[in-house]
Order: sequence, then structure tokens, then C-alpha cells
Amino acid sequence: HSLGRTKQVEGPALHTLLTDLAKVHNSRERASRLFEWLIHPVPPQNFFRDIWEKKPALIRRHNPEYYKGLFSTAEFDRILREDFVQFGVNLDVTSYRNSKRDTHNPPGRALPFTVWDFYKKGCSLRLLNPQAFSITVWNVLSILQEKFGSMAGANVYLTPPGTQGFAPHYDDIEAFIIQLEGKKHWRVYNPSQSEIGEPSLEVVLEAGDLLYFPRGFTHQGDCLPDAHSLHITISSYQKNSWGELLQKLVPAALEMAMEEDVEFRQGLPLDYLTYMGVQNSDKDDMRRAEFTGHLLGLMKKLADYAPVDAAVDQKAKEFLHDCLPPVLTPEEQSSSVQGVPTRVENGKVQNVTAHMKPQTKIRLLRDGIARLCSEGDAVSLYYTVDNSRVYHKEEPKSFEIQPEHTDAVEFLIRSYPSFVSVASLPCDSLEEKVSLAELLFKRGLIHTSEPLVFS
Amino acid sequence: HSLGRTKQVEGPALHTLLTDLAKVHNSRERASRLFEWLIHPVPPQNFFRDIWEKKPALIRRHNPEYYKGLFSTAEFDRILREDFVQFGVNLDVTSYRNSKRDTHNPPGRALPFTVWDFYKKGCSLRLLNPQAFSITVWNVLSILQEKFGSMAGANVYLTPPGTQGFAPHYDDIEAFIIQLEGKKHWRVYNPSQSEIGEPSLEVVLEAGDLLYFPRGFTHQGDCLPDAHSLHITISSYQKNSWGELLQKLVPAALEMAMEEDVEFRQGLPLDYLTYMGVQNSDKDDMRRAEFTGHLLGLMKKLADYAPVDAAVDQKAKEFLHDCLPPVLTPEEQSSSVQGVPTRVENGKVQNVTAHMKPQTKIRLLRDGIARLCSEGDAVSLYYTVDNSRVYHKEEPKSFEIQPEHTDAVEFLIRSYPSFVSVASLPCDSLEEKVSLAELLFKRGLIHTSEPLVFS
Amino acid sequence: HSLGRTKQVEGPALHTLLTDLAKVHNSRERASRLFEWLIHPVPPQNFFRDIWEKKPALIRRHNPEYYKGLFSTAEFDRILREDFVQFGVNLDVTSYRNSKRDTHNPPGRALPFTVWDFYKKGCSLRLLNPQAFSITVWNVLSILQEKFGSMAGANVYLTPPGTQGFAPHYDDIEAFIIQLEGKKHWRVYNPSQSEIGEPSLEVVLEAGDLLYFPRGFTHQGDCLPDAHSLHITISSYQKNSWGELLQKLVPAALEMAMEEDVEFRQGLPLDYLTYMGVQNSDKDDMRRAEFTGHLLGLMKKLADYAPVDAAVDQKAKEFLHDCLPPVLTPEEQSSSVQGVPTRVENGKVQNVTAHMKPQTKIRLLRDGIARLCSEGDAVSLYYTVDNSRVYHKEEPKSFEIQPEHTDAVEFLIRSYPSFVSVASLPCDSLEEKVSLAELLFKRGLIHTSEPLVFS
Amino acid sequence: HSLGRTKQVEGPALHTLLTDLAKVHNSRERASRLFEWLIHPVPPQNFFRDIWEKKPALIRRHNPEYYKGLFSTAEFDRILREDFVQFGVNLDVTSYRNSKRDTHNPPGRALPFTVWDFYKKGCSLRLLNPQAFSITVWNVLSILQEKFGSMAGANVYLTPPGTQGFAPHYDDIEAFIIQLEGKKHWRVYNPSQSEIGEPSLEVVLEAGDLLYFPRGFTHQGDCLPDAHSLHITISSYQKNSWGELLQKLVPAALEMAMEEDVEFRQGLPLDYLTYMGVQNSDKDDMRRAEFTGHLLGLMKKLADYAPVDAAVDQKAKEFLHDCLPPVLTPEEQSSSVQGVPTRVENGKVQNVTAHMKPQTKIRLLRDGIARLCSEGDAVSLYYTVDNSRVYHKEEPKSFEIQPEHTDAVEFLIRSYPSFVSVASLPCDSLEEKVSLAELLFKRGLIHTSEPLVFS
Repeated sequence: HSLGRTKQVEGPALHTLLTDLAKVHNSRERASRLFEWLIHPVPPQNFFRDIWEKKPALIRRHNPEYYKGLFSTAEFDRILREDFVQFGVNLDVTSYRNSKRDTHNPPGRALPFTVWDFYKKGCSLRLLNPQAFSITVWNVLSILQEKFGSMAGANVYLTPPGTQGFAPHYDDIEAFIIQLEGKKHWRVYNPSQSEIGEPSLEVVLEAGDLLYFPRGFTHQGDCLPDAHSLHITISSYQKNSWGELLQKLVPAALEMAMEEDVEFRQGLPLDYLTYMGVQNSDKDDMRRAEFTGHLLGLMKKLADYAPVDAAVDQKAKEFLHDCLPPVLTPEEQSSSVQGVPTRVENGKVQNVTAHMKPQTKIRLLRDGIARLCSEGDAVSLYYTVDNSRVYHKEEPKSFEIQPEHTDAVEFLIRSYPSFVSVASLPCDSLEEKVSLAELLFKRGLIHTSEPLVFS
Repeated sequence: HSLGRTKQVEGPALHTLLTDLAKVHNSRERASRLFEWLIHPVPPQNFFRDIWEKKPALIRRHNPEYYKGLFSTAEFDRILREDFVQFGVNLDVTSYRNSKRDTHNPPGRALPFTVWDFYKKGCSLRLLNPQAFSITVWNVLSILQEKFGSMAGANVYLTPPGTQGFAPHYDDIEAFIIQLEGKKHWRVYNPSQSEIGEPSLEVVLEAGDLLYFPRGFTHQGDCLPDAHSLHITISSYQKNSWGELLQKLVPAALEMAMEEDVEFRQGLPLDYLTYMGVQNSDKDDMRRAEFTGHLLGLMKKLADYAPVDAAVDQKAKEFLHDCLPPVLTPEEQSSSVQGVPTRVENGKVQNVTAHMKPQTKIRLLRDGIARLCSEGDAVSLYYTVDNSRVYHKEEPKSFEIQPEHTDAVEFLIRSYPSFVSVASLPCDSLEEKVSLAELLFKRGLIHTSEPLVFS
Repeated sequence: HSLGRTKQVEGPALHTLLTDLAKVHNSRERASRLFEWLIHPVPPQNFFRDIWEKKPALIRRHNPEYYKGLFSTAEFDRILREDFVQFGVNLDVTSYRNSKRDTHNPPGRALPFTVWDFYKKGCSLRLLNPQAFSITVWNVLSILQEKFGSMAGANVYLTPPGTQGFAPHYDDIEAFIIQLEGKKHWRVYNPSQSEIGEPSLEVVLEAGDLLYFPRGFTHQGDCLPDAHSLHITISSYQKNSWGELLQKLVPAALEMAMEEDVEFRQGLPLDYLTYMGVQNSDKDDMRRAEFTGHLLGLMKKLADYAPVDAAVDQKAKEFLHDCLPPVLTPEEQSSSVQGVPTRVENGKVQNVTAHMKPQTKIRLLRDGIARLCSEGDAVSLYYTVDNSRVYHKEEPKSFEIQPEHTDAVEFLIRSYPSFVSVASLPCDSLEEKVSLAELLFKRGLIHTSEPLVFS
Repeated sequence: HSLGRTKQVEGPALHTLLTDLAKVHNSRERASRLFEWLIHPVPPQNFFRDIWEKKPALIRRHNPEYYKGLFSTAEFDRILREDFVQFGVNLDVTSYRNSKRDTHNPPGRALPFTVWDFYKKGCSLRLLNPQAFSITVWNVLSILQEKFGSMAGANVYLTPPGTQGFAPHYDDIEAFIIQLEGKKHWRVYNPSQSEIGEPSLEVVLEAGDLLYFPRGFTHQGDCLPDAHSLHITISSYQKNSWGELLQKLVPAALEMAMEEDVEFRQGLPLDYLTYMGVQNSDKDDMRRAEFTGHLLGLMKKLADYAPVDAAVDQKAKEFLHDCLPPVLTPEEQSSSVQGVPTRVENGKVQNVTAHMKPQTKIRLLRDGIARLCSEGDAVSLYYTVDNSRVYHKEEPKSFEIQPEHTDAVEFLIRSYPSFVSVASLPCDSLEEKVSLAELLFKRGLIHTSEPLVFS
């Protein structure tokens, strides 16, 4: 399984990479390039073909600096000191000793004095949503989620030398274990094994290395006596399978079939309860086969009524609700509503009358930031920019798009990454074009090719 | 549509019929014979082939006595006088005048003085569950439900001459309108019509006549100036279509597929949100067809995992909960737990030690009275005998059957209508056979071929 | 404590007594006479002066027939056979053996065969609300509640020879233990005792005897080896103390005081938290006494704002909701709405136009059957006639009385037991008088001195 | 009412004042001095004697710089730009035109571009909890709440020239209107007036002026055509009256009386419902006076059972839950758990073994920061330091104090503002003293006279 090599693998510093990415015109390309860096030197094409969802993989880099800037023990300490971290809510104190897993969270705020005391006594620390406290983690995840088309989450784990914090277990997400400091001894087991048995992969991860394994693979990690370990696990693809999409699709298909197809509304046979059901399951009755055949026939016919795109929209709405809001680049900032130089001076408003003009060029702020979704007979625009860094702290954000504006919004979405002029929006009148552009601008969903000029 | 003839159609008096039916050995045959009487002289085979769920039908009998004994205005008055009938709960006072439908229910108990005053002033009266107040209606419905394999309900309508009580509307049940007294002018309309238009059937129903129409057929009835009308509507097949069974089956199939078939657990394509969903629905992208094809393929594959009998059991459980409890015949009474002559005299119990013997012959009290249903991995016996005459007043009644008794209970159920000896039950020991038989006897689910003898 | 004597105490048979009471003009007198019979030969005046709420008392009658007709084991059996009695809901099967109290309720309906089997095996049976199944118990309790001005409840206990069904305990009601059949050995303990110690009263109760004890008195009863026991406990005065009235009164008084008296709205001292509260409770600070003094002064001043009658009305509403509906006497039946001979014949209403006339004489059906209660600024008439025999099965019943009718309703209530003419009601017009009288008649709250005559 | 003068009133800049206050040893004195500055030059003693809760008062200063640094339009703009302000949650857009009050909140985040556009069009802006966004406002309120012994809240109002944002109304708090920029024309009306009538105080408030009025005084403010207005309203004493304390006290007193005093448990008179209650309220019945007398006597007797300190504790708990957490001064920071220099370097913890020594001197971090409150039979320490800047975002914070530690915690609380040595705590052993001190230190409730020294 190991893709390790002996030569040092180089890469740009994260800070430099993020600055460079900020200049990439297309947010989807940004996402691809950041993911490329994450799994470098494995080519993404190979990764998704051979490894993703299939098997564990180790990327050994012999380069402790590779992930520098993503997170550190010093940042952990700063967060405890400056932010309001609460035991049990944002931070777990755990141990796994003599095959026993314990949680040691006291109540209340987690301050360094208490937290490091636990650590000194051999407890592991799990910071639950570092993206709420670290702008870099937030930025990285918010870019990666566009690659995955599924929420990207993270936990940070700090483990003292010679200890283990968690029992062997498996998760329901694709996991990228990024070693940031020290080392950790990992054992990963195949999901088919009923007993834990021998690991299929055993490795000591060092700073700069990456370990990937798919959901369902049991794993455990422990520290060697001579080194602590700090790693961040980036995860994605929770509840993102074909089955989960079918959970949206199938009930909707059935509802539609019952409305449109009289066969589905037809009454059951008068006496079906006398030969069907578990108490009749080993009965030798021809009617059983006939009944089952008709029922399964209808079940297959359901596919004719499956509202595929509407079901995808249900998944998409959930994804947009799960999403982190974007961390704006300086350019995005200055060309969007957030950078408008409107101010109040001496009670008088300055720079407020910046009307969109026909020739003003606009586009979505980022590709994945907003989406037209069906809402019964109506269509709504769902968006991520007003989400919170804290998971689901805000309700899903959306507003209805009037039928006469749907085409224009769709046009805008499809034109990305190109800027298009306000005049080119397919609306009935110039007034409508401008008013739609201003609405989307005010909501922070589009930006302009040049900062607006104020009169 | 009319099946009316000019000659008088004869039939047994209801009282005589019920007495005769009480002697019919097989409860399912009882149900068939009662239904036969209901639609006589139309043969049931023809009815279910040509009319049921298909079109309205009139059975004209020229025999006002045909349904005598089922319900009457005098019985209505007796119920108001002796039972606690409440406006809005058991009785509705309505009118439909100048295209306006009104409900006139005052609060509180409905006493004859008030009710008949409304009636005199031209209001219609709807008694909502006559089976709770009339033993005959209860008896008839509890027998018919075994024919339908679906709850049989009823409402009674009393309308003063020259008035109408309800606006044109349609229901979601198969309706049997039984004219008991007076006459009513009916108009029934085809369901396809968007506007009400011309009736497809127009008729004046007279005492002894029957009007049937399927769910979805709009209808209205009004009284001629010269006669009041009393009718009872017997209904069945509410939510009893193939579609409703699929609503149980399909989610269960999907759950099973996701557990057993890795294809259903496989992640969605990374970028599916960029070409699927309503906003991409008119995109010309080959991946759309590929995605849809795979998804609908999985949807069809669902049929491979469909737990048909378990889904039928879910419907069956609901039906057993909906069921009226049986009205016991004198023979059923004397040969079941209800007729056991156990008494206490001077503080001493008489006739309690009636143990089942190996040669005691037993069978289910009635065919449809109990049913083995799957309950996850366990199996439970659901039953109707402790239900209430008031719809869903009692929770569903069931108890778990131990694995070692399942075969015996199934044997008992399948043996109906034959009596089988306790000794013949497929249990491990005679003790177990007796103990199972005694349990079922105590719960009122079985009766014996001869009344038990007490020591 | 014992008031027992050796001579047989005679009394009328209950059936005769109830027939006689039905002729007593004033329902309150009926209640007194029934209570007199209950505790005969102790004069009620003495009972309430010396015993009630103070101490246990035994009335020994040497007359096993005294309470005959109230309830019996035969009636118990009939109820099990004919009514739908459910284990755990209406009937408890219990035992107290080796200081251990157990409940043996199986699920489902309680049929004689099962119940008497438990009894035979030494279990006690408690029938929880015999008034729902026995008209005599219902009648007796519904009369007694008028005496107590508080709900009268009952339980029936049947205990096999040589057993005990319940552990020693105390209740929160005044208890009248009426021995119906057999004998029971009772021990009653003073409430002050912390350990159970020696009973203050020990007695073997025989059929026809009565044992009374107040709430809070620990007690236990067991059967002698030679006799079973059937008794009914009649109870009253649950949550009917001055304290419970104050729970209604005091919050209302405070609300009123805060609205009307600026002293109650005045802010607390700026620094009161620095010297008051538990952490300062042993502080020697003059301000503590001053603060406490002012606060307790306000507390006493609350009495000036106490809406006493409105608080009593709150208790009264609860009582009227708790009440059993009356069992009408033949005379009450025929002179009230329930006896009106309105009928429908051949679809035509007979005897419905019975208008009240000015000279028609009316009064409340019974004294305690309805009551005017304040409802914020409005006044409502609460009543018991539509209550259920099952405790609180119905919502509280009331309707608002228009301001112009309050005097007339009050006049009617105060006039009881006298009949007054409709014309004498203090309403603005004869029309209003008649319409009010008809409303109250329709609701079953009044009856007429002579049955109404119909045109 | 006016206390205005013509000479300029001077005062320290707020920034300087807060820096000075940070050096004041006793937090209660800090609070007094800040309040003094707020109402300067009116002496607090006079203010509380003559004005507080009694009448409106104007403090005219002719010094627009007086409140400088508290809040500004520029700060408002910064908050909109940098923080996540949401319409309807944190910010209201309002107008009052032609006697009609409107709210114009769009959904979503409030960005400057949108907000200032509303403002330009004549809408008023109300920032609902500036303390969540401005550290200075948070600091000022968190100090003042210790003066009031009741939550101190704030709203900021920005109004364009020539407009009015709110209809005349009154509030349930003591209001301090602090004019920050521009001017506002105010009219205040006496609470007794049923119609609004003439204002009892009419004034144009200018920057640096203060207007106070008690709860219940109707008021309205509008901008003159030539100037916008920015003011902050600081409020306190919501639900902090004697009546509100009685709402805690009286039910507790009644519960206690019913437990301890048999008079409260005594049954009500058998027939009280026949002479008490609204329907009997004008009855001339001697028993009415007797009943009422006894009842009101008991009501007054309640005072004997009033658990005054426990009721105060209930108010105190609510106050501690309402409180803002403190803004720590640099000295508080460095001498408390928040300043402990514990760090992790290269996976090794530095500076964690700082044990309290017997001679370490400690005290509460601030006077009002924690409080011992009764909790049934137990005693808990409630505290404010883990509260949120957002009202009630966190649950009330407390932990139980073991009986053997109650004296020591009480000693510590009472000793404030003095530091006491760990050795002087009244605990059973030195170990317990140290462990208690360490617990309180870890929770951030105490600080040390000198920063701890680490080994």
C-alpha cells in the first residue's frame, strides 16, 4: 500500500501557495490545485482511480516542513488563550489505557493551564472544529469543499509521547491524516475482517507525511515513547453515496407515480393478506409469485417517474448548508459588496450611490457559492456566503428567484468563470437587469471585474 | 350504469341472515356471504370484475324492506337519548344552501331535543361512527372487514325533505350508499372531469336500493321535497393501493441494499453537482445521461432487495389496528375465554381449573383475528380482539412469539377453519403445547371445539 | 377510638334509601342524608366536630346487610365479563409477601378466567374506578360529592383469605373503608411516628362496618386465614386545604398588587445583593433587618389585594371538572331536556315545539351542578352534567354568560331549591328571559316543575 | 427637571478613565467611579435620592467630547464591515412617518453598502447589543452592572437628519440616553397621563449631554433638519422590583408553611363553595367574613415561613446569568489563570507545575464575579466569567460546593477586596486549602497577589 519514497518531496510553503491560489481566476481550479498539493506527489488522476474509496495509502515525504503553516501546537495554545474554547463542545480530553477509552472533560472553559496539565498527565486532546478558530484551516477547508462537492471537515489531535488517545475504530468519512509535528504509529485494518487481526498497513507517520484511508477501515494510532504527535485529519464524503441520493429520489418518485399513474393507485387484491406476509412466506401458493411479480414490476417502473435533478437539488441544498463560508481574497474583497467604500462621515453617507451600469462586468464570487435549486414548483437560490464557521449554526440560506429572473441567474452561473456584462443578462428590460445585479451584489453573491466607481 | 330492474329483489331479513351466518363455520365464508347479500343480486364475481374501483353502479330492488334492521331513525333517536353523543365528535349538523356549506355544531352533548330541532329547521345530520353505538352496524362492519382485508367504516346521514347537507365532493374510499328510509336524489360525476359538468349517473335512490361508486368520483345527494332520507354509507379501501404498499416496501429495500450491496454505498462522482440538478437540467453534457443511467439502474436493482413479506406485514399491522373487534356469536362466546364459567362465590373461586388437555381441539376464534408479523428479527402476534369500537382508541395490540413457538402459531393460523388438537401443535414438549394453548385461550384468540370442562 | 357497640345497627337498604332520596326536593339535603346513612349511627355534627381530619374511627354495626347493594363480588364478576376492563388501567393485581410489594398486571383485557386465577393464587385485586362500571357506586359518589364540596372517589379491593395486598402506607385523602363482604384486619398508625411502631387502632372489620381515617395516617389491612375481604374505599378532600386555596390566591394577589400599588413596583436597593442571600445570612448588618422588614411588610400588605372570591372560583372550576355527572332520578329525567318526548317518525319530527312560557317554573337541576365563575373580566357558567364517569376524560365544560344575563343566572342559582317562573328572571325583556331559559334547558342545566307540554 | 448649566462640564477621556479604573483595587469602587463619571457633575447621592426611579433629568454639559471613545458612527461602520451583523437579530432598520412605525429589515447579513443606503433614505438604525461588538461598550457595561446589582444593557441608535425612527412609547427599564454625535429633540411625558398630552420635559440633547428617565415614562425623540443623531441608551433594573422578589419568595413561603404548619394543611370548610366565590360575592352571609378573615390571617402568617435569603439567591442566580463576563485588566489577566505562562514547546509542556503555596495570597477576581447560592439543601457557587457577551447564549454557570468547603468560599467572598493567604482558608487540612484554591484558580474565579512562580 505504501507510496513512500526515500527522496525528500518538496512543495511550496502553504502561505505562498494560498497567496498564489488567490490569483487563480477559477475557484474550481483553485480547489484542484490545493488538493494536488495535499496529495503531492501522487497525481490526482491516479489517486482517484486507484486509491480513493478503495484502500489506505501512505505518502512519505521526508520533509517535515511540507505542511508547515497549516496548524501547530503554538496555534493550539493561542486558541486556548484567546478564544472561548469549551470542554466537551470544542475540545475533548481522552485516554486509551489498558484497552479502556475514557473522556476526562471537566465542565466549562478550556484554558491552557488546565488543558496542558491534562496533556502532561498523558491525555490526548482533540480540537473538534479548528476551522472555527484558525483562519488557515478555515481557508483550506473552504477551498477543498469545492473539490469534493461535499463538506470538508477537520479535527486536530495532540498526543503525548508513549500514549494512545482512542480505541481502534472506524469512521464514515474519507480520512486524510496530515502529520504536522512529531510522529505517530498507525495501524490500519481491512473492513472485511470481523475480528481486528493483523493490520493491512502499519507505519510510523512523520511530520510532512500523509496517510489516507477510506471510510469503514478500522484504525488506531499511538505515540512512540520518544515523540509527541500533532496531526490534523481532513475528512469528506460523509453520507455522500448513491444510496443517500436514492433516499431523496425514491420517495419523490413514488409520490409522483401515485399522482400520475393509475396503476399505482389501484387497490391491492382483496385477499392478499391471506397469502402474503411473513406467516405465509413458505406457503406454496401461485398467487405469491404473481403478487410479488406485479409489485416488483411497479417498483422498477418507479424509475420512469424519478425526478433525478430535483433529488440532486436536495443533496445540493444540504451541501450548501454544510459549507464553510469562503475566506475572501483581497481581490474578491475589493470587488464585492464587502469592499464597497461606503462610509458615514459626520452623519452623512459617502460613496453609496454606486449603481451597476449596463457595461459593468459581473460573475459569481466563486463557482460553488450559490446554486439554483427546485423548491416544489418554485426555484430558489441557495448560497453559502452567510453560513457560519461553526457547523449549522446558521439556518440554510436562500431566497426565491422570480420566474422572470431564473434564466438570468442560470446564465450567470453557467458563465462562470467568465465575467459577463449586466446588459447581457437575459432579462426583459435593462431596469430588471440592473436591479437583479444589484440584488445579487448586495447579498455578496457576485463581484465585478473592476471595483465600482462612486459618484 | 344502472343495474336496476323492475321486479322486486328479495333477500333474507338482516337479523335472520346474521343468525344464520353465526352458524357458518368459516369466518371468511361468513364475510363473503354477507357481502353477497349487500350487493345482491349482482354476483360478487361480476361486481369485482366489472364495477369495483371502476365505475358507479346502482342496484335497484323495489323492496324497501331489504336492509331493514341495519339502522333506522328510531335507532338514531335511541342513541341520542341513551348514549353520550357529542356534537363535533360523533355528530355533525350541516347544511348546503345557495352553494354554501355550513356546519352548525353547538358545543357539548347532542340530545334529541336539540338535534331534532336542527333537523326540523332543515339541517342534515351525520352520525360519524354508528358502529360505536349500534351493535348491528358494528357486527356487519366487523364481518365485512374480513372480506375487504381493509378497514370497513360507516357514516349515517339523515336529511330533511327538500334540502341538501353537503357540497359536491369526492372521497378517498370505495363507497356503498345504502338507502334505509325515504329517498335521495344522487348525481355522480366522472373523476376525469375538471369542471363538474353533467353527471354520468343520476338517480333517485329508494329504501332498499344500493348505490356504489369508487373513490375519486365526485358526487352530491339531495332530498326531494316530498321525502326525507336516511342512508348509511359503508366504506373501505382507504389507503389500500399498491402505491401505499410501496411506501412501506421501498425505503426498506433501500436500507437493505445499502447494507448488503457495496454499489449503493459507493460515493457519488466528485463533480456531479456541476452537471446535475435543476440548474443544469438543459445542459448538453454526456455525463448527465451516464449519471442518470447509473442511478436509475441502481433504482431498478432495488427490487433485488425488496422485503416484500415484511412490507405486507406493515400493512397488515395497520389493518389489525384499524379493525373493529369481533361481535362474538353465542357459540364463539361459550367456547372461548369469554364464556368460561369461572366465578367467585362467597370469596371462593369456582370453575377456574380448566386446563387444556392434549386432546382438546382448538382453532383461531376467527380467521382474521390474529396474525404473525415480522418485527425486525423477532416475530409478534398482532390481534384485533382487544381493539375498541372507537377508531384507534386503543394502541395496536400484540405480543412477541418466542422462536420455539412460531411454528405452532403458524400451524394454528394455517389450519383454520379446522380445529386441531393441542397435542398436534409442533412444540418441543406437551407442556409447551398446553402452555401456549392456554396463553392464546386467555388472550381470547382461540376457542375450543367443545366448551372446557371444569373440575 | 372505637365507636363500636354490641347491638346491631339497623338502616334502610341502599336501594330503598336511594329511591327515597330521589324524592327529596333539595339535592344538598339528599347529600346530607346519604352521608348520614354512611356514618350512622354517629351524628354528622359529632363526626365533623370530633373525628373528621383528626383521628381514625370505627363504626361497628354487627349488621352484615348494612351496605348491601353498594357493591359485591358478583358485581365485580359481572363487570369483568361485560365491560372492557384493562389490567393496569382499571384493575391492579397485587401482592405483599415477605415485606415485598409486587404488581402482577399482564397486558390487555382483564377477563374473569385470568383475574380469578390470580385471585385463587393469593393475589389481591384493586378495581380502580368502580363508578365507571357500577351505576350504584356512580350514584352514591355523585350525591356525596355535593356533601364534601370536593371530588368523591372510590376503589374496590378484593383480597383472598390469609393474604395482604399492599404494604403499609398513607394517602392524601380522607378515607372511608366500607366492609362489604368477609373480614379484614386493620392496623392504623399515628402520622407523627417516624418509625411505624405500634398501631393506634387495631381492629377486625366485618361486613357492614365502617372504618374512617384522615389523610396522612399510615395503615395496613390483611385477611385472616378464614375469610376473604371485599371492601370499597370512598375518599375525598384530596388537595382541598387552605394551603391549596392560597396557591391560587397568593400569585393573583401579587399580580394585582404590582399593578395597583407603586410600592410593589419600586426597585430593590442598589446594593441588596451585598448583604442579603445565603452567603450573607450570618452577617451582622443592620440593613438585613431593614430589608427583611420592608419585604415582609409588603408580603403582609398583599392581603389587601387578595381576590378571594376569584381564587375560590379557581378551586370551584377544578371541582366542577372533577365531579361525576349526576345520575338522574326518574323525575329529573322527565322534567329536563333528557326526558323531552321529541321524536322523529317517518322523517317528521314530533313534539319539538315546546317553548318555555312566562309562567313555566324552572330551577337548577341540582344545587351543585353549575356555577358562575369569574374568568378574567368575563363570567362563565361551569357545569358538571356533560362530564364523564371516567376521571377528566372530558375537558372542563363551561360557556360564557353575557353581562346582561349574569343577574338572571345568579338569581336562578340563589333561588335553588325553589322553582321560579321564567317571567321572574331579571332580564331586560320577556324574549331574553325565554331565550335564556331555553338555552339552560337545552344544555341540561335546569328542569321544569311540570314536564313541558308540546303542541 | 433640567439640571443643565451653561458652563462646559469637563471630565477625563473615557480611555484614560478606564485605564485609571483598572488600577482601582476594589471592583465595587470601580463601578461607583464609572457611574459617577456617567452622571457627573450630579453627585450620585443626590441622583439616587432625588431622581432615580422618580423623574426625568437632563445633564447638559456643553462639551461634545465628554463621552468620546464610548461609541461612534465610525465604530458602527467598522462593526458592519468586520463582524457578522444580521438584520433582525443584531440590527433593526426602522422609520416613523405620518404616525406609522415600520421595520424594514431585509433577511441576511447587514453590510455597510445596504445599511447606509437605508440610512441615506431616511431610516433609523438600532444596533441591538453593541456590547457583543465593541470592547469598550462591553467593558463599561460589565463595570456598571456591579453598581446596579442588575443587568446593564445597551442599544445604539443612529438617526438621519429630519427624521424619527420610533413611535412614542415607554419601556420597563431605567434609561440613560447618552448623546454621542449630533443632536436629538426629546419629549418625555409623565406616566400618569392616559392621553399623551404635553411633555413634562422637552429638550434638544447635544453630544456630551445625558438624559435620564425612569421606566414607564413615555418618550419620543426626533432629529432636527440640520443634524443627524447618534446615541447609546444604557439601561438597567429590568424586572428588579420588590414585587419581582416577592414572586420568588411567596410560593416558597407557602410551600414551607404547608410542610411545617398544620393550619395550612387543614381542609377547607365543607360548604365554603356555597357562600364564597363570585356568584356569592354580594351575599350577606356572616360566614363570608369569617372565611375571608381566616384566609387572610393565614396569608399574613406566611411571612413567618418566608425564606428571604433563598429568594434573594434566586434573584442573584438570574442576575449572575444575565451578567456580562468581565473585561480583564492587564493586572487581572497576568495574575489569574488566563495569564499563566503555561505553554507547549516541541511537544513538552512548560510552566505547568505552579502549585498554590500556603503563603500564596488570593482573592476573588472581582467582587460580583461569583456568589454562593442555596440550591435546595445544597450550596452552589454561581459565576459570571464563562458567560457570553451575547445575552443568555450560555447556560447559567455553577458548581456545587461541598459542605466542608462552604466556610472557606464564604470567607474568601467576604474578605474581598483583601487578599488572604491560602493557609488562612477555614478548611480541615492544608491539602484541602490548596486543592480548593487551585480549583477556584483553574475556573478563573480568583487571582493571586503576585503572578505564580513556576518551577
